[in-house]
Amino acid sequence: MIKNDLFLKALNGETVERPPVWMMRQAGRYLPEFMEIRKKYDFFTRCRTPELASEITVQPIRRFGMDAAILFSDILVIPQAMNIEVQMKPDFGPYLPNPVRDQQGVDNTVIPDVHHELGYVMEAIKATKEKLNDEVPLIGFAGSPWTILCYVVQGQGSKNFDKAKAFCFMQPKAAHELLQKITDTTIAYLKAKVAAGCNAVQIFDSWGGMLSPTDYQEFSWQYINQIIEALKDDAPVIAFGKGCWFALNEMSKSNASALGVDWTCSARNARYLSGGQVTLQGNFDPSRLLSPPEVIKEMVHQMIDEFGKDRYIVNLGHGILPDIPVENAKAFIDAVKEYKG
Amino acid sequence: MIKNDLFLKALNGETVERPPVWMMRQAGRYLPEFMEIRKKYDFFTRCRTPELASEITVQPIRRFGMDAAILFSDILVIPQAMNIEVQMKPDFGPYLPNPVRDQQGVDNTVIPDVHHELGYVMEAIKATKEKLNDEVPLIGFAGSPWTILCYVVQGQGSKNFDKAKAFCFMQPKAAHELLQKITDTTIAYLKAKVAAGCNAVQIFDSWGGMLSPTDYQEFSWQYINQIIEALKDDAPVIAFGKGCWFALNEMSKSNASALGVDWTCSARNARYLSGGQVTLQGNFDPSRLLSPPEVIKEMVHQMIDEFGKDRYIVNLGHGILPDIPVENAKAFIDAVKEYKG
Repeated sequence: MIKNDLFLKALNGETVERPPVWMMRQAGRYLPEFMEIRKKYDFFTRCRTPELASEITVQPIRRFGMDAAILFSDILVIPQAMNIEVQMKPDFGPYLPNPVRDQQGVDNTVIPDVHHELGYVMEAIKATKEKLNDEVPLIGFAGSPWTILCYVVQGQGSKNFDKAKAFCFMQPKAAHELLQKITDTTIAYLKAKVAAGCNAVQIFDSWGGMLSPTDYQEFSWQYINQIIEALKDDAPVIAFGKGCWFALNEMSKSNASALGVDWTCSARNARYLSGGQVTLQGNFDPSRLLSPPEVIKEMVHQMIDEFGKDRYIVNLGHGILPDIPVENAKAFIDAVKEYKG
Repeated sequence: MIKNDLFLKALNGETVERPPVWMMRQAGRYLPEFMEIRKKYDFFTRCRTPELASEITVQPIRRFGMDAAILFSDILVIPQAMNIEVQMKPDFGPYLPNPVRDQQGVDNTVIPDVHHELGYVMEAIKATKEKLNDEVPLIGFAGSPWTILCYVVQGQGSKNFDKAKAFCFMQPKAAHELLQKITDTTIAYLKAKVAAGCNAVQIFDSWGGMLSPTDYQEFSWQYINQIIEALKDDAPVIAFGKGCWFALNEMSKSNASALGVDWTCSARNARYLSGGQVTLQGNFDPSRLLSPPEVIKEMVHQMIDEFGKDRYIVNLGHGILPDIPVENAKAFIDAVKEYKG
């Protein structure tokens, strides 16, 4: 039994005194104690060492007391396990020296045994669960197949992922084959994460908003939905699509327990588009954490008023930025805890 | 009198046989004849030499016969004229070595005499009008004040314009002063462009979609609306906000003659959000021009069916990409001309 079950209650649509709160990328560079570890160990060492990953995961919980922890890891461990080299370059971000650009590239990818290739993630989950001591739930995550394809084909971050889109539009058969392989891997991966102790999972579709509504259905949503269907009896699933306001209605008809929204979609629009029944998660502009703490608190209270306290999980609309002052992050979390309906 | 007045009719809400078509960035790198000129002259030389700018402007009209020309220029001529250095670096894009980051920086900007500082633009318009010989209308354009601020503060392109947003949220007074100075300059600039011969103007809010709806009203829309109000008796104004679907309702209540939409907003959503009466422009995904020509034609016909042939201007949802084959661009334009309702 998890002692603080606000987050799980909200996912289950139950009435709560106040909405739960966590922050995407809460174990991140804005935290001095995270930076201490970052100085000593490179990115994938931190991901692959259960002692480090679990420590990083619980750091923000200790400092701020969020209502959920999210395992420190990266969405690109999936392509790595699929036989695609992924480097994390300082001051540059992910770099894949051999991007997939054709059928041959797709054929070279494998659907791995996740327990073997990604066993270190399961170990990190077990270590984290021990440290959390059932105080708060633990979230596991994965990228959406489309978002993974974006990196795998583009080879790095991009403003418009033009090469990834070109691949899908010029070689749709190969693209769908790759998406299916990523989907199959992701399903096995998330099932293993839940078996290892995760209480919920989130699918990050960071680049779904680069597609038209029609292309989103074809290249992203159908694969996310396969994952939701496969996981629905294992754990609650949160589907977060940045810029995917146009798909909220379709998403609300799925078996996802909650839908993430970004800050361009108002609470009113989000409730309207999603039909008013599904739990929503979001959507504070990460840059707005640069406002003075008292302004942050006011804006958070207004946001809760607009979404309503039930069927709602307070979060940012995307990951927290590295240059956010710690006291501003604290103001965000405290504002939720101080909320009186 | 303009011989082909389809575009002006659509802006005026009149019934047409088929919708007019043009493409954002139609005078661009996908065109071999543009690349010939680009080899010989750097970016700002092309902008500042009326003979070059006018030649580049009419190149796509000669080849494809779009229903409107848009003057070759750049939104960053405005900050340049305001005393902010702007460089265009090959393979990098715009670079502003002395970005505005505080009140002092704002104080250092000036509201220029646009006839003097940007006289070369007016000369380019006159040269273009001669070449066009009243065959099709000529569009003039400017960036939205918010989008200009993004570059002026960030100093270069960015995925999230975090420094620009930080400036607005941490120093709102200075930000509003800068936005007003850009607005005043832009109004004088666009009025001069119309006086020099432009038949319509478009305001590009390329980065408005990075703001929440509330922040969009505060930092972007109120300034765009000032420009629309100031220009409404001079020429039809098209307001295009990339990612600004959430503001379409507010925008539809303005005196803009048309609203641009990007490809994430379906025709149905765009018509619904904008109230069904205003002329809309868009919204083909620029990456979809990588599909085979026959697929492009089919998708264009479907797009026109969805928007309806009246109160509609066919366009892309953002600028054409450099790697689009010429025959694919041609398929896009031809599809519109071949459209039978």
